[in-house]
Amino acid sequence: MRAVCVIGLGLIGGSVLRAASAAGRQVWGTAGSVADAQAALAEEFTVVDVDSAIRRAAREDALVVVAVPLPAVDAVLRKVGDLAPTCLLTDVVSVKGPVADAVTRYAPTTRFAGGHPMAGKSASGWAAGESTLFTNAAWVVTADEETTVEAWREAAQLALDCGAGVVPTTTHEHDAAVARISHLPHVLAAVLAACGADGGPLAMALAAGSFGDGTRVSGSRPELVRAMCEGNRAALLDAVDDALGRLGAARGALASTGALGATINAGHAGRSAFDEQRAAGRAQVVVDLTGADPLEELRLVGAQGGRVVRFDGDLAVATTPVLTG
Amino acid sequence: MRAVCVIGLGLIGGSVLRAASAAGRQVWGTAGSVADAQAALAEEFTVVDVDSAIRRAAREDALVVVAVPLPAVDAVLRKVGDLAPTCLLTDVVSVKGPVADAVTRYAPTTRFAGGHPMAGKSASGWAAGESTLFTNAAWVVTADEETTVEAWREAAQLALDCGAGVVPTTTHEHDAAVARISHLPHVLAAVLAACGADGGPLAMALAAGSFGDGTRVSGSRPELVRAMCEGNRAALLDAVDDALGRLGAARGALASTGALGATINAGHAGRSAFDEQRAAGRAQVVVDLTGADPLEELRLVGAQGGRVVRFDGDLAVATTPVLTG
Repeated sequence: MRAVCVIGLGLIGGSVLRAASAAGRQVWGTAGSVADAQAALAEEFTVVDVDSAIRRAAREDALVVVAVPLPAVDAVLRKVGDLAPTCLLTDVVSVKGPVADAVTRYAPTTRFAGGHPMAGKSASGWAAGESTLFTNAAWVVTADEETTVEAWREAAQLALDCGAGVVPTTTHEHDAAVARISHLPHVLAAVLAACGADGGPLAMALAAGSFGDGTRVSGSRPELVRAMCEGNRAALLDAVDDALGRLGAARGALASTGALGATINAGHAGRSAFDEQRAAGRAQVVVDLTGADPLEELRLVGAQGGRVVRFDGDLAVATTPVLTG
Repeated sequence: MRAVCVIGLGLIGGSVLRAASAAGRQVWGTAGSVADAQAALAEEFTVVDVDSAIRRAAREDALVVVAVPLPAVDAVLRKVGDLAPTCLLTDVVSVKGPVADAVTRYAPTTRFAGGHPMAGKSASGWAAGESTLFTNAAWVVTADEETTVEAWREAAQLALDCGAGVVPTTTHEHDAAVARISHLPHVLAAVLAACGADGGPLAMALAAGSFGDGTRVSGSRPELVRAMCEGNRAALLDAVDDALGRLGAARGALASTGALGATINAGHAGRSAFDEQRAAGRAQVVVDLTGADPLEELRLVGAQGGRVVRFDGDLAVATTPVLTG
C-alpha cells in the first residue's frame, strides 16, 4: 500500500492520518500547530517538520495530502513544487478551484487530483479528529481534463481506505454544487439569525424548532465559515443571486396576491428530491479504468449522484441512485 | 375549575382537550373532521355538533377555545357571536391579527384574549395530539388595549393548566415576532431547498448537515405552511424585506471586496443571543392583577423574554431571563 504524507494535522488532516494508518498504510505528517504536532506525537504517530515530510514523500513516492486551510495552501504547494515536484498529490480543502490554480502555479508537474471529504464537525484541531470521521461520507475527487487516471485513482483509493464513497466530478462542478448545499446554507442561516435576533427578547423567547434548525450552523466559528464561503466567491455569488431572485419573487407574490404557493411548493419539491435521493435504491455501474475515456464515465457517475465504492483490479465499481423524478 | 369547550380537534385542539381534561377540567369538543370526531369519541371524550357545543358553553359559562385553521375562523366566530355572545373566548391559531379582527367583526361582546401555543409537530389531526404537547412550551396570550384582565387570566390559566408558560404581548408584537422566528424560517428554507435541488443529483449527493438542517421544515405539508405564512402577510413582508436587505448586502460585499465578515458575524451574534437567552438564569417578577395597569406590566414581562409561570391569588408570578448582552 502506498505511504501517505499528510501536511496539516487539524480535524480533517488528523483524521486522514489516523484513518490511513488504521487501513494499514505507512503514514507521517507535519503540523503548523505545535499543539496538534505534540498531540499526534503523543499518540505515537510520526510527525516531522514540513521540509522533511515532503522530502521523504519524494524519496518513497508517497501520496502527499494537503490538509491546511486555504490561506496556507500557496506556501505549502511552493514547498511541494520545490522538494517533491513529481509526487502524487491530493488535498482535502473545501473549495477546489483555488487549490487547482495554486497547483498549476506552484507545483505543475505533480501528479494531482483534488479532494474534498464531505465530513466535519463544529470542533477543530487534532484532538477533534477520529479515524472513523469519513465512514460512509461522500468524498469528492476531481476529474478534470488535465487529470490523469493514475492521480485520480491514487486519491480515490485513499478516500476508500478512509471509509468514504468517492464522488467524481470536475473542479468547477464541485465548487458550484458546494456553493448551493454548503456555503449558501451558511449565508442564509446568518441572515435568518440576524433577522430573528432583531426581534429582541420576545422573538427569541418564542423561537423554537424552525428557527433553531435554520440557524444551527451560525453557531460555528465565524472565521472558519468566512474562510470557507469567501474561498468559493464566484460560485457562491451565483448561488446567492439565485436565492435573491427566489426570495424577491416570494416578496413580490406576497405583496401582490398574498400567495406563497410557488415558493413553498418549490421548497417542498427540493426537500423531497433530497430525501428521495437518500432513500433511493442503488444501481451498480462499472467503469473500466483502461478504457477510452474513463474519467468522462466517472464524471457521469458523479453527475447522476453516484459514488465509486471500490476498485476491482482495473475496474471502478460505483453505485448510482435510481431516481424516479 | 372552569369548563372548556374546544372547537376543532386536530393536533392542537385535540391536545388542548386532552391536557385540560388531564388537569381536571370538564371538557367537550366539536370537530369538522369526522375522523377526528370519531377518534376523540373512541377515547371517551364528549364530542357534539358545533351548535350544541357553543350553546352548552354559553349555559355553563365555559371558556371557548377556537382551534380551527385560519380560513375557518370567521364561520366559527359567527356562530359564537350568535350562540354565546358574552362567553369567555380564546384561540390557538398561529396568527393573532386576523383572529382579533374577526372577533371584533363577528363576536364583539365576547370576553376575548387571543392565544398561540408555540408547540407542534409535522404530523396533524387528533391522532397526532397528546396531553403533554405543551409541556414547558411558550404560549402567547395577547394583552391589547381592549383586553380585560379577566379574559387574559382565563386564557392564561388554560395555558398553565396545559403545562405551558404564558408569554404576554400584543397582537401586533406577536405577529411581528413570529414572522421572524417561524414564518421567515419557512420561506428561507424553501428558497434554500429550491436552490440546492437546482444543483441536481450531484449537489444532492454532496448535501449533508448544513443543507439538511436548513431545509428540514420544507418537509412539512405545503398547504399548512402556506396557510400559516400567508395569514401573517403584513408582518412577514417586513421580515422578508429585512432578509432581502441583508442578503443583498452580503451579495454586494461578496462581489466588491469578497468579504463576508459583516454577514457571518451578525449571524453568529444572532444565534448566540438565542442560545444565551435559553441558557440564561431567570429572575422572578410578580404582577398584581388588581393593580393600576397590570396588562402593561405583563406586556413588559413578555418584551423582556419572560413568561408567567403561575398565579398566586391575584398575583401573576413570572420569570424573565437575566441577559448580559
